[in-house]
Amino acid sequence: MASAIAGSASRTGPATDLFGILALFRVGHPLTRADVVRGSGLSRATANQRLDALIAAGLVIAAEPATSTGGRPPGLFAFNRDRGVLLLADLGASAMRLALCDLAGTILTEVEERIDVSDGPVVVLKLVSEQFAKLLAGTGHQTTDVLGIGLDVPGPVDFASGRVVSPPIMTGWDRFDLPGWFTGTYDCPVVVDKDVNAMALGEHRSSFPDVSHLMMLKVGTGVGSGLIADGKVHRGADGAAGDIGHIQLTLPDETGIEPLCRCGNHGCVEAYAGGWAMARDLRASGKDVHTVDDVLRCLQTGDVTAQQLLRRAGRILGRAVADAVNLFNPRIIAVCGQLAHTDEQLLAGIREIVYQRSLPLATRNLQIVRSELDPRAGLVGLAALLSDEIFSHERLGSLINR
Amino acid sequence: MASAIAGSASRTGPATDLFGILALFRVGHPLTRADVVRGSGLSRATANQRLDALIAAGLVIAAEPATSTGGRPPGLFAFNRDRGVLLLADLGASAMRLALCDLAGTILTEVEERIDVSDGPVVVLKLVSEQFAKLLAGTGHQTTDVLGIGLDVPGPVDFASGRVVSPPIMTGWDRFDLPGWFTGTYDCPVVVDKDVNAMALGEHRSSFPDVSHLMMLKVGTGVGSGLIADGKVHRGADGAAGDIGHIQLTLPDETGIEPLCRCGNHGCVEAYAGGWAMARDLRASGKDVHTVDDVLRCLQTGDVTAQQLLRRAGRILGRAVADAVNLFNPRIIAVCGQLAHTDEQLLAGIREIVYQRSLPLATRNLQIVRSELDPRAGLVGLAALLSDEIFSHERLGSLINR
Repeated sequence: MASAIAGSASRTGPATDLFGILALFRVGHPLTRADVVRGSGLSRATANQRLDALIAAGLVIAAEPATSTGGRPPGLFAFNRDRGVLLLADLGASAMRLALCDLAGTILTEVEERIDVSDGPVVVLKLVSEQFAKLLAGTGHQTTDVLGIGLDVPGPVDFASGRVVSPPIMTGWDRFDLPGWFTGTYDCPVVVDKDVNAMALGEHRSSFPDVSHLMMLKVGTGVGSGLIADGKVHRGADGAAGDIGHIQLTLPDETGIEPLCRCGNHGCVEAYAGGWAMARDLRASGKDVHTVDDVLRCLQTGDVTAQQLLRRAGRILGRAVADAVNLFNPRIIAVCGQLAHTDEQLLAGIREIVYQRSLPLATRNLQIVRSELDPRAGLVGLAALLSDEIFSHERLGSLINR
Repeated sequence: MASAIAGSASRTGPATDLFGILALFRVGHPLTRADVVRGSGLSRATANQRLDALIAAGLVIAAEPATSTGGRPPGLFAFNRDRGVLLLADLGASAMRLALCDLAGTILTEVEERIDVSDGPVVVLKLVSEQFAKLLAGTGHQTTDVLGIGLDVPGPVDFASGRVVSPPIMTGWDRFDLPGWFTGTYDCPVVVDKDVNAMALGEHRSSFPDVSHLMMLKVGTGVGSGLIADGKVHRGADGAAGDIGHIQLTLPDETGIEPLCRCGNHGCVEAYAGGWAMARDLRASGKDVHTVDDVLRCLQTGDVTAQQLLRRAGRILGRAVADAVNLFNPRIIAVCGQLAHTDEQLLAGIREIVYQRSLPLATRNLQIVRSELDPRAGLVGLAALLSDEIFSHERLGSLINR
């Protein structure tokens, strides 16, 4: 019983009041004290007390009215997006994208760098730390200005602990304590997620904020997806959800053995339709193709075999996406990754099979679109994930007393 | 801006206080006024004012202490589970199960009746109304005692409106206004959901309350599933989520054309592994088998063909379940429906393929079990769904002022 009461207390006490009031400011335009009383449903005395605490903490500041009304303007207050900054790192297999953003999630400065994720966490995270320091120095910020750090990685993550778990392609990263890496330098929360989860959240918040159920399908070297269920990232019981790339298919027109996948199984979606599999097939046809960048070059020069393989990849992806549509019933499927930005062959192949194989009820309002945000979806999603975390009612108290 | 403020008001005002205090009583043992102050985080005056409102509405009553302490007992209060009753109807294709329960979800009386759901909504709902009246009369209740009605049906439902949408097997039910049927007789919320959704919620709340991600797989005449994501029913964008029965498979050992499904497509999971498909295959082998009950009789008499078909059905289900494990990553898969309660062949077949085809990260903590609650999972889930609805902070106000 004690725990039930304690659990409830955190939802109805002063922290929730502060959270609720800050949320009013975070979503909207400047507000007066009267707006806050009305919006919070609290008594005038309590609402003003809570607002004063947010002002004292520097999270809410006096604001100028947008337009002069001629008369004496009422006291307006707004969220102080410059009360601190967030540091973000979107790690891929061969490149990383880092940014510094304000508390509203607006990216202030950004940098991209080649990496090899299989060099292991120490090598890669040293580069991340160096770049973070440069981003801070370049914008005139101190480490104490950093209110949160967000990272995403191309592998499964135990979200609660921030550790990478059983990653297929991140050699040496298994169980590595990512938040612990930053502890000595920064005194702030560190959030770590799988790359496709951050991308799905970014696409949702930025392009489709009114769509509760969305799938972000990434088709690059590998194939993966991030799921938004009821407006939140669906990570599943082990952080393994959305793993569409290793659904195993049996194709009716195939002869002989199913292709070997990087995961050790045969016949996975990405063993047919991932960028590495397309490179393998182009190489088998006698071309000098090794990476997904080589595949893209073939496509850009109008190579017919590459075009045919891309359409075939779309159709094969369509089989797995059709399963996902039946099971998960998203409103939007946004396709991202290097192969999504070639031409319409990939999306056409996906659409062809999904509309053929899924039930009408699940497809009548379904849209399959190219991601609007890619390749910055990861950074945008990380900023959203991180602000939700540091301004959550569990965390907000520590920010007020800081 | 106005809507953002209004939206927030409903989350932090007096309704939330009432909701929070009632929630304390609904989950736990009797509480003193001091417990309520501590548990709610409200001031003594506000907490007592809210508690008095709940007492005046009859939702909280004075309670006896569980054991005498010898001294003068402090004033204890408890949730009044007898403040009203709920009526529940779990509709299947060929039978319905109805119950009357108290506000804590305890079923007080229950009845089962054969129906044919394809007789259409008017015929079936007349039977439901008659049985509801009998359940009330038999327990000495009036229609005004009914605080909520819950129904589930074997087809997709638009949860917000309570209408059945595009049901494959419920002839004549498309777009029928189920809540509207009860409006003239009862003045209370009516909640309608897909059967597997209610069953999934029932199994979650009753057997696995600490498991956030669960799949309830129903294998009866047809095949379907209900998904619990983050402790809540995942219905998807159109109420079509969990439709595992119409995932299309290509089997490597099949020759010729894939079997025709009831949905009009070829090669769906239930066209191989549903009870109706097993009946078809047994009939093709010369047996007089037409329904899933006939299939069960064959299995009970040790018919070897039926046993082989059941194991094969398990393996085929395993292929679709493996896809669901990769995409959704549940901790528990509970198998229910008539074919789940035969012998271990079905579950053994599912397990065999899932552990072979899904990634280790998603299966290392996965359990595939027989439903503990079936065939009452639907009713238990409806009671939970309905109590959450009528005691939600949006609804609670109307109950207080009633």
